[in-house]
Amino acid sequence: MKSLGAKTLLFPTPVSIIGTYDKEGKPNVMTAAWVGVCCSQPPCITVSLRAATYSHGSIMERRAFTINIPSEKFLREVDYIGLVSGRDTDKFSAAKLTPVRSELVDAPYVKEFPLVLECKLRHTVELGLHTQFVGEIVDVKADEAILMNELPNMKSVNPFLYAPVVRKYYAVGRYLGEAHAIGKEL
Amino acid sequence: MKSLGAKTLLFPTPVSIIGTYDKEGKPNVMTAAWVGVCCSQPPCITVSLRAATYSHGSIMERRAFTINIPSEKFLREVDYIGLVSGRDTDKFSAAKLTPVRSELVDAPYVKEFPLVLECKLRHTVELGLHTQFVGEIVDVKADEAILMNELPNMKSVNPFLYAPVVRKYYAVGRYLGEAHAIGKEL
Repeated sequence: MKSLGAKTLLFPTPVSIIGTYDKEGKPNVMTAAWVGVCCSQPPCITVSLRAATYSHGSIMERRAFTINIPSEKFLREVDYIGLVSGRDTDKFSAAKLTPVRSELVDAPYVKEFPLVLECKLRHTVELGLHTQFVGEIVDVKADEAILMNELPNMKSVNPFLYAPVVRKYYAVGRYLGEAHAIGKEL
Repeated sequence: MKSLGAKTLLFPTPVSIIGTYDKEGKPNVMTAAWVGVCCSQPPCITVSLRAATYSHGSIMERRAFTINIPSEKFLREVDYIGLVSGRDTDKFSAAKLTPVRSELVDAPYVKEFPLVLECKLRHTVELGLHTQFVGEIVDVKADEAILMNELPNMKSVNPFLYAPVVRKYYAVGRYLGEAHAIGKEL
């Protein structure tokens, strides 16, 4: 095994878009890969942002955010959203996306994306360059077209993936098997 | 958009194997999907475990763990490792995997897996059913066969994915484009 140094090489990460309102109520989005589920009950998710980002101040102010899972067809929009700041750009307009006000949390979600987690801020942990925000998932909204047996179907959501450090995007591939089942063959 | 209730529907999550020593020094592994990068500098990663798991006590005791990224060919072993407890099973032996002592942190890694993050425990956050452990990544070890320009190549690592709630595994698919670049076309 070769040593590569201390690097954030989790292969792969999900790709998500964080929705927030700033203090004037302007909706904003940013692209985030530093995201992960962190508790099942209550359902919680963590997103880490640099203090320099415009969204960081908005989450501190509003104590809420949405996590929007984009489909692969929005690859260019998602990457673009990661290249500019909401401080001086209306990213919803520029990317031709539509903000919808959540009825449950003080944040907007992206109408065009198939899956949305609405989150209330529960904890803030300062780690260094990034602040870790832990949000409680209070509801999930889904486009009915992606549901199968009332739950999201991966092939219909068609999310995409990120490879940190090497900075590349990948699609989700083929179905491999049922979890908590396929291992019983051993 | 249809309401699905408060569920941990992050699509998809990575799949990783957490390596620990128990207080007697027995190496153990568990399967985790509640994992995510949470800081770039210092590089940190979060893993959330139920207090009932054997690994939870080991991380509290040793203040260290490894995050091992399995290739798709270990799908059955990874699922099996999630079905049994290290309290009463030697999971390394049962899954025919080899523990290697990290020289940097007080935890073992899995010799057969292509990518390993060696972590020292930095923060513990109690969230409910799960405890969130934040580890600082002190080094990354990689099988030389998966490297391209000194960094891991996704197709060679060949990790796999998890769809929470619906409990299904998926492969990583085709390369889509360069991050921080493809969005400039907009």
